Amino acid sequence: MSGLLFVISGPSGVGKSTLRREVVAKVHDLKYSISCTTRSRRTGEMEGVDYFFLDRETFEKMKARGEFLEWARVHGNYYGTPRRPVEEWLQQGFDVILEIDIQGALQVKKNFPQGIFIFVAPPSLKTLEKRLRERNTDQGEEILLRMTNAHLEMKSIHDYNYLIVNDELEEAVDKFRSIIVAERCRIRDKTDWIEETKT
Amino acid sequence: MSGLLFVISGPSGVGKSTLRREVVAKVHDLKYSISCTTRSRRTGEMEGVDYFFLDRETFEKMKARGEFLEWARVHGNYYGTPRRPVEEWLQQGFDVILEIDIQGALQVKKNFPQGIFIFVAPPSLKTLEKRLRERNTDQGEEILLRMTNAHLEMKSIHDYNYLIVNDELEEAVDKFRSIIVAERCRIRDKTDWIEETKT
Repeated sequence: MSGLLFVISGPSGVGKSTLRREVVAKVHDLKYSISCTTRSRRTGEMEGVDYFFLDRETFEKMKARGEFLEWARVHGNYYGTPRRPVEEWLQQGFDVILEIDIQGALQVKKNFPQGIFIFVAPPSLKTLEKRLRERNTDQGEEILLRMTNAHLEMKSIHDYNYLIVNDELEEAVDKFRSIIVAERCRIRDKTDWIEETKT
Repeated sequence: MSGLLFVISGPSGVGKSTLRREVVAKVHDLKYSISCTTRSRRTGEMEGVDYFFLDRETFEKMKARGEFLEWARVHGNYYGTPRRPVEEWLQQGFDVILEIDIQGALQVKKNFPQGIFIFVAPPSLKTLEKRLRERNTDQGEEILLRMTNAHLEMKSIHDYNYLIVNDELEEAVDKFRSIIVAERCRIRDKTDWIEETKT
């Protein structure tokens, strides 16, 4: 596999989707893997753009057939990454972004230890709670659940390669984009290139 | 030491200085370590900005007193990095850039294996030769010597962390800047930060 796999992850409500959308629009030759979910669609979200929205039965059939690279149940809903497009893109040499929760990221790391794992964190847990309340998509109890998870999830940070503190959006987008540009310059196996340059 | 040490290096004539100047102007909190040299000053170069221009006797005294982090004789001239400012900046938490030749970079790597080593390469050796001729600061024989060295130096690439092919200047500057931004996001020891975020 010659493409790079970027996995962006972090607590719920931290702004992963916005970051990912901005970066996919700015960086060439980067494929975004659309996740499947059984959660209901939020205002503004589009089928086949933000997620593939599936019913639980369909999701469980795909899961049983091993069609997910990773899957997780988060806050009562299923989320999963379809395996085939990711593997095909990487084989074709495209870089791929997954935007997934922390449980899912740790699963992907088992299969793709060479992946580049980026943790998006809030400037503080207080800010996170404020954002979840302002987003207004969750009820009080669900916010409490998400906050408890966020506390636990912060401990996974050492399984990641990079940390982006999402304070100012523009700065966070620049950091994410820079990580991709830099990783593309990283020396892995450039033997072919050296051969070419000799002529 | 808490600052990051970036070492930018590559064959003579590849455009290291231009790249470094552009990036130092764009990136905040980045200290550039000015090298000492015994070579003669080129048009446009300024004492204490581009280099400290020393006579051979002064250089050799400093060398004997261990005042250089690295030094090298390249194409008949001495080059060296004064040790003290670099160590002080790193201790104070500043990130530092060294722009040095490949021999020097390999010496620095022995003392600072945690440094970030960036190799700047020409799109091809033919392009490099063309640039050296256009720069018009060297005679025919010296160009031949530089080209022979460049051939050998390309083999050191696997001691480096990143490769920037300097084809389009703007793109190369963006890559260099991105490497710095990304390395600042890299997870090394962020335990302090996690403690802070918990509150």
